[in-house]
Amino acid sequence: MAARTIADEGEFGLIAAVTSGLTMPDAVTVGPGDDCAVFAPTGQVVVSTDALYEDVHFRKAWSGPHDVGRKAVGSALADVEAMGATPLGVVVALSAPPETPTDWVLEFTKGVREECELAGAALVGGDTTRGPAIGVVVTVFGDLQGRTPLLRSGARPGDVVAYVGRLGMAAAGLAVLGRGFRSPGAVVRAHRVPEVPYGQGRVASQAGATSLIDCSDGPLADLGHVARASGVAIDLDSGSLDVDEAQKTVAAAIGGGDPLNYILTGGDDHALLGTFAGSDVPQGWTVIGRVLPLGPDAEASVTVDGKVWSGDAGGWRHF
Amino acid sequence: MAARTIADEGEFGLIAAVTSGLTMPDAVTVGPGDDCAVFAPTGQVVVSTDALYEDVHFRKAWSGPHDVGRKAVGSALADVEAMGATPLGVVVALSAPPETPTDWVLEFTKGVREECELAGAALVGGDTTRGPAIGVVVTVFGDLQGRTPLLRSGARPGDVVAYVGRLGMAAAGLAVLGRGFRSPGAVVRAHRVPEVPYGQGRVASQAGATSLIDCSDGPLADLGHVARASGVAIDLDSGSLDVDEAQKTVAAAIGGGDPLNYILTGGDDHALLGTFAGSDVPQGWTVIGRVLPLGPDAEASVTVDGKVWSGDAGGWRHF
Repeated sequence: MAARTIADEGEFGLIAAVTSGLTMPDAVTVGPGDDCAVFAPTGQVVVSTDALYEDVHFRKAWSGPHDVGRKAVGSALADVEAMGATPLGVVVALSAPPETPTDWVLEFTKGVREECELAGAALVGGDTTRGPAIGVVVTVFGDLQGRTPLLRSGARPGDVVAYVGRLGMAAAGLAVLGRGFRSPGAVVRAHRVPEVPYGQGRVASQAGATSLIDCSDGPLADLGHVARASGVAIDLDSGSLDVDEAQKTVAAAIGGGDPLNYILTGGDDHALLGTFAGSDVPQGWTVIGRVLPLGPDAEASVTVDGKVWSGDAGGWRHF
Repeated sequence: MAARTIADEGEFGLIAAVTSGLTMPDAVTVGPGDDCAVFAPTGQVVVSTDALYEDVHFRKAWSGPHDVGRKAVGSALADVEAMGATPLGVVVALSAPPETPTDWVLEFTKGVREECELAGAALVGGDTTRGPAIGVVVTVFGDLQGRTPLLRSGARPGDVVAYVGRLGMAAAGLAVLGRGFRSPGAVVRAHRVPEVPYGQGRVASQAGATSLIDCSDGPLADLGHVARASGVAIDLDSGSLDVDEAQKTVAAAIGGGDPLNYILTGGDDHALLGTFAGSDVPQGWTVIGRVLPLGPDAEASVTVDGKVWSGDAGGWRHF
């Protein structure tokens, strides 16, 4: 018997399956099923939207539907954390070819729901539609709960740079998958699903962070945004960057050069990178550098041990 | 010289072009350019997400980029109006093949901005990414400003059904375009760009509407949602439905049968359909039917002149 496809379910059958048994927190006053969902924030609201497309951002051969659901939601909610906000709600627009198995969508939905639960956010709505390939657009919103938004522009000379989360693990995973390997497991899993440090955006805000960003394109690229927005320079201390055994293994096995490359230029782990007065760094965060005044050439830049990093510093190129 | 493509611009160049010169209303405290946009609502917030894909929801041969931008935003914001809320912000996730001309995206953006301006909403953020075809996912936010959300479930026997906006014009336009014609202009334009009755959601709420929905799949299908959610029956009066001259012309020219079919089953015009106590119907709205108690078979249904409509009542089938 052929597996059921989403064409068999139809739009309304699919939506019913995706939303069945959802419970809503008090802050969501109208859940899925009407023209809009409705929520009642207690402070200012932050919003961001993020797209993942098959064969651009993920491959079905490398990531299962559950992974894709978790990654789509996690990578979007990291932006909420990066404002110092608390995740509140998620809407998901899924496009897929009609022959997509229903089971793929149901597993994807389980991943979406699991990541929402980890973050404390509610899946409040979505859209399902036919499309040429699987495409997932997740729009997230969070509640600042009275806190001031943490911008990229607040870093001050004298601050230290610190992070919480993982760095360069997803990039090492992508490197091995691209060569046809499926191990080490730690980096492959990191490519499939980020481990977003939920709650640490609020923690950073309460600790007095001066700027915050989530690491989606690698620390050199992302701290570059902070440096430019703040009109400062940033220098990282390579000795403070712990290379994971799995990253060393990958670099050695595939001739990938210095494993610090994964850490400095690898995106998709969605760690949080913040700047703080030195005494304000929260517990669990690691100091990896410092904020400096602009040099005589007045060009905002990120250096490593005082020098321009010579490895691949390209970040992710979208087109 | 070859036209520039979005691959030539790169992601950041494209974002700069798309967001250049945007001004933000007071309610938007952080505009595009950080991890999230931030806004400060005055009441509960409504949210909805809507996808348009090339060759599923629009064809490049039939709709220009400016049209697609307006339609994507308008069809999404109609859901905000349908809650009785006031449009506040819009985020747009655009995916496109790398060879897409830059000009296509810039014209699309002009359409997005123009529709935002008509609605009084701000374009606060987005995402641009490579994808297999042009895909536009618009997520919209609105502010209830202290009003109660208008749900589909509030219709009561004794209410009248009224609408504001256009009905069946886009469907007639799609019918002629599908046969290779480009006229009458009124219906072709209606297919390309909806005319969302901005502000009328708030008006309906203030007038005391008991339910409200936007007409995206045709009144029979959309009022069917209201009937089921409210546990009522709805009967429409065909004599109250004004057939446009252009709709008559199309039905006669292409053998499309009764032009009322376009009105009753045609979606994509994004009129607002509401139920009201008879004395509460706002100025500019047209009464087209009434809400009845459920019949003895207790099946919520929408009838026309007391009978099941025999024309095509399928609405839009997504898969």
